[in-house]
Amino acid sequence: MGKISVVGIGTGNLDEMTPKARKAIESAEVVAGYNTYIKLIEKILVGKKIIGRAMMQEVERSQLAIQEALSGRNVAVISSGDAGVYGMAGLVLEMILNLPEENRPQFEIIAGVSAVNAAAAILGAPLMHDFAIISLSDLMTSWELIKRRVSSAAQSDFVIALYNPKSKRRTTQLAEVQKILLEFRDKNTPVGIVTNAGREGESKTISTLENFIQEEVNMFSLVIIGNSQTFVKDNFMITPRGYDL
Amino acid sequence: MGKISVVGIGTGNLDEMTPKARKAIESAEVVAGYNTYIKLIEKILVGKKIIGRAMMQEVERSQLAIQEALSGRNVAVISSGDAGVYGMAGLVLEMILNLPEENRPQFEIIAGVSAVNAAAAILGAPLMHDFAIISLSDLMTSWELIKRRVSSAAQSDFVIALYNPKSKRRTTQLAEVQKILLEFRDKNTPVGIVTNAGREGESKTISTLENFIQEEVNMFSLVIIGNSQTFVKDNFMITPRGYDL
Repeated sequence: MGKISVVGIGTGNLDEMTPKARKAIESAEVVAGYNTYIKLIEKILVGKKIIGRAMMQEVERSQLAIQEALSGRNVAVISSGDAGVYGMAGLVLEMILNLPEENRPQFEIIAGVSAVNAAAAILGAPLMHDFAIISLSDLMTSWELIKRRVSSAAQSDFVIALYNPKSKRRTTQLAEVQKILLEFRDKNTPVGIVTNAGREGESKTISTLENFIQEEVNMFSLVIIGNSQTFVKDNFMITPRGYDL
Repeated sequence: MGKISVVGIGTGNLDEMTPKARKAIESAEVVAGYNTYIKLIEKILVGKKIIGRAMMQEVERSQLAIQEALSGRNVAVISSGDAGVYGMAGLVLEMILNLPEENRPQFEIIAGVSAVNAAAAILGAPLMHDFAIISLSDLMTSWELIKRRVSSAAQSDFVIALYNPKSKRRTTQLAEVQKILLEFRDKNTPVGIVTNAGREGESKTISTLENFIQEEVNMFSLVIIGNSQTFVKDNFMITPRGYDL
């Protein structure tokens, strides 16, 4: 029986991948992951069998990976950022636990630098106080629940980080989210947008709650909305923790 | 003028620190951080000047670090986990930006594997859906606001991760939080506790909302409370994202 490692690769820049993650990938004979992420780390994948599938086929990809492990190979299933945050960890783990105990491959989950942490470091220090992470993808979550979460988080002054803020298909949600946030938070609240963190074409924009939806946002963007204390200075976004300076 | 790098070291296990973080520490002549974290990575600190201070003196420690950089040395200010999450990034950045522009050292923030991601990987995959991060430390945040955040996050079915759940001084808050959560969430909701993630003495406990406050929790613990969909199987905690298996 082989072993499956579900690995968070961080931004995709090898300099931001932990040694533990890198070792798991290097010692795997088979690597499974979305094509975009496979390409980011192809330098360390030479000679390995690659299971690279389009974004929408996570279940099939996981099944193939598990089959490889069951036939004796070591497999790394990769996710960008941290595999445990909207990544592959839950799906692979659940599928393995659905197998009879005697037929399960060994498995481990290796944490990575999460996209929100990578984006925050580029913006300054926007996550220094309590924050909420919300994905705007309504593929598997109802839009009503997503809006309810945005509203709750806004009401109790969480910093809010939005994953999957926009895609080709989903273009109107960010404006709906903005409207909800404006009910509870000042229009000058800082909003940071980081696209392609740690990758080619990395960009950073700091805007306001009133104006941020006019900025370029795509499926490789992460949006961070400040709380009532967040401020901007010299193009850095800071949420103070409360030290007396 | 020297340079200040504010560095997230991850769990403290060198195998879980990114190469970028390690290089920044290795190329620093001065390293500042809380004694506990300095000790975790002392192997790579040989020959460096150490500014190690007790937990409560973050402002003084940052000031000393900035002075060192201003006198021409390269300085690494370290935080466990990610420096941008209840760590040193915000404080150091704010203090640097308070200096006149021509008198500022160069600085950078290097993201690390956040404590919540490290704990989640040990528990299974509890963070696969929207989640809220709340610190129970009321040193610089009012207890009323903390409770309001717990209540909001509970009402809209966020997975909730609690930082600083308990200290020697603060022993009653976890029970208050439990009471709030029980208003909105089933008593059998899974609760995971990880103490000393990635370090000597690492422990993992999976309990329920009804019973978790009877478990050992201390200042090195992270507590993760599931949402309405979270389940436990064979001692792993999973919040499904919604795939049809």
